Amino acid sequence: MTPSDHPPRLSTRAREIEPFYAVEVYRQALALAETRKTILMCIGEPDFPTPAHVVQAAADAAHAGATHYTMPLGIPALRQAIAAHYAERHRVAVDPARIIVTVGASGALMLAFGALAEPGDEILMADPGYPSNRACLTFCGATAGLVPVGVAEHFQLTAALVERHWGPRTRGVMIASPSNPTGTTIDPAELRAIRDVVRARGGALLVDEIYHGLTYGQLPPSAAGLGEDVFVVNSFSKYYCMTGWRLGWLVAPADYVPAIERMQAHFFICPPAPSQWAGVAALTPESTAIFEAQRRELEQRRDYLVPALNGLGLRVACKPDGAFYCYTDVSAFTHDSWDFAMKLLQATGVAVTPGRDFGTNRASEFVRISFTSSLPALQEGVEAMRSFLARG
Amino acid sequence: MTPSDHPPRLSTRAREIEPFYAVEVYRQALALAETRKTILMCIGEPDFPTPAHVVQAAADAAHAGATHYTMPLGIPALRQAIAAHYAERHRVAVDPARIIVTVGASGALMLAFGALAEPGDEILMADPGYPSNRACLTFCGATAGLVPVGVAEHFQLTAALVERHWGPRTRGVMIASPSNPTGTTIDPAELRAIRDVVRARGGALLVDEIYHGLTYGQLPPSAAGLGEDVFVVNSFSKYYCMTGWRLGWLVAPADYVPAIERMQAHFFICPPAPSQWAGVAALTPESTAIFEAQRRELEQRRDYLVPALNGLGLRVACKPDGAFYCYTDVSAFTHDSWDFAMKLLQATGVAVTPGRDFGTNRASEFVRISFTSSLPALQEGVEAMRSFLARG
Repeated sequence: MTPSDHPPRLSTRAREIEPFYAVEVYRQALALAETRKTILMCIGEPDFPTPAHVVQAAADAAHAGATHYTMPLGIPALRQAIAAHYAERHRVAVDPARIIVTVGASGALMLAFGALAEPGDEILMADPGYPSNRACLTFCGATAGLVPVGVAEHFQLTAALVERHWGPRTRGVMIASPSNPTGTTIDPAELRAIRDVVRARGGALLVDEIYHGLTYGQLPPSAAGLGEDVFVVNSFSKYYCMTGWRLGWLVAPADYVPAIERMQAHFFICPPAPSQWAGVAALTPESTAIFEAQRRELEQRRDYLVPALNGLGLRVACKPDGAFYCYTDVSAFTHDSWDFAMKLLQATGVAVTPGRDFGTNRASEFVRISFTSSLPALQEGVEAMRSFLARG
Repeated sequence: MTPSDHPPRLSTRAREIEPFYAVEVYRQALALAETRKTILMCIGEPDFPTPAHVVQAAADAAHAGATHYTMPLGIPALRQAIAAHYAERHRVAVDPARIIVTVGASGALMLAFGALAEPGDEILMADPGYPSNRACLTFCGATAGLVPVGVAEHFQLTAALVERHWGPRTRGVMIASPSNPTGTTIDPAELRAIRDVVRARGGALLVDEIYHGLTYGQLPPSAAGLGEDVFVVNSFSKYYCMTGWRLGWLVAPADYVPAIERMQAHFFICPPAPSQWAGVAALTPESTAIFEAQRRELEQRRDYLVPALNGLGLRVACKPDGAFYCYTDVSAFTHDSWDFAMKLLQATGVAVTPGRDFGTNRASEFVRISFTSSLPALQEGVEAMRSFLARG
């Protein structure tokens, strides 16, 4: 008997979980970059590195001995700093005891879904939406109840849609604001109305605020202010430019915290210790000044890119008021946005993410175009796309 | 309708997952430490900090821009360094393509179990054993098939036990060598025999080598040499003194890697980037010299502690040949080791971990006593236990 007698016997969940297509495109772009110039407009992270003093705070803490496990919920200094952030920036009182520091927002999603969803349960969410929500629910044996949304809804769920799609196995609703891939934020009054519907149904409301802070207008209120029964997922990855540190947080209803703590201890033990000290440094006024300057730079890029794409006939469905994505309707040119993205990449070196990553709702007619490259690079990308489209 | 109308509706899995009792004891010891001296003999991590040059390698990399996401499977430099480690230290060729860098060994366990176990499946493992194996399987809707083992089996499974306990829903077998909580290693011939049984049954073999390297005799061979169908879990936490960095790895059969990569991308995105660069530095000869000196210090502590505990009537069931734990039979004094540990802590400030964390097999007659404190601290702990026992 040799190993080859036994082909892999993957679990159903492992077979069912789709590739993270944005990663696949990025991988192809990197491979292509070995032989030609590429312009990355596919990336889901800021091009800005973590500020040097934030890096140094992690290094100093680690040199001083913060190389051991922390308590599962995170270091008190960071949980308190996050609570202070809610108090100061959002005028919302959040008990630090309800704040769980996590291994990226990914870790927060797994803990929240793990605490809520029975096998067979469903969480309603917008399609298009972030693919890992679906994958995490698959891991739990649960499903994402994908609700198609479009320009009319600013790519966000509404209370009416939640009412209409609520079914016997619906356990809750997830809202992402600003949304990946659309960059749209939800109207605060609509979100309150959704909360009321979810409460009336006895369900759970989760709000993904991973891109919170990265908005190009008035700062929207945090869903943490909607009530202590609301789950809020956040991250140091985007606004704080800390993707590689794997640091996020979850605000959970107090009654759920003990079970979430048990799961955190078993599945993660704790978030990375040096990263947590970096997180503390990222929440200081000195850091905010840097992040705000970067936010303004992203806004300038958006203000260039949206009209430029529209001018090419690549219609930005809704002008993004947050995050760093233009969700772009390519149906004037193709009804196979995967094929379009692959050909664009091969022909021009411009990498964009096909809609396929984000669900099934007109996914083949959309691509996500990121403005996480410099303005000159974006300009170069636009010119390359112009030539590509002209060639037909 | 207010939030309080709805009590938390935790998922079954979230309710079923037990506390990580070692963490609970640690928390109580920390609370006690505010008012009295404590001696921590409950801890599952080395007291040594990460070597300064390893910390500096992470800081240098982060300052140079390694603050972004990495590819899901990890940075090539680290995957190659781990492959070189197998080649040089164990004379085993492991293709870097089969090496998945993970968020601690915890992340590796979740990925491996997630790839293998259908809901309802069972993975056989020794009782006593590491609690998070059971918790991760619970998350997957699967179960740990706990096989009671004792001194006669050196607290390890045998091929005969695997044969006897294999059932219709058994999907595989997990071996931990060195074992937490017993510090025992498995006989290499027995492990080969288990591999043969598992292969004959068409199952999967997972070997937890988290404490590999931390052995006090001849370095055991790595299970990575047993065949490319074997899953091996390892960690930078223990031998490499990097618990807080959350870095581990999984060697998986090649056919499983694509699915594991998809899960990693969705559930973790990637392991922490600065930690990965620390990991590269931890695998250099300069680092090995430090870790070997620390291993010798742990060995000295063991050689003090085992006879000292036996002298108190706290019988170390098997002299540990690895890790940093004495699994200690307290049945001469109590049949409630949880109560014993709590009273010992309150009376003396000495913290040990009750057997309850590790399963159900005579768990109430055992405690795990760590030698992750300095020799003087261990001596003080032993004297405190002597007084405690004398008082009855």
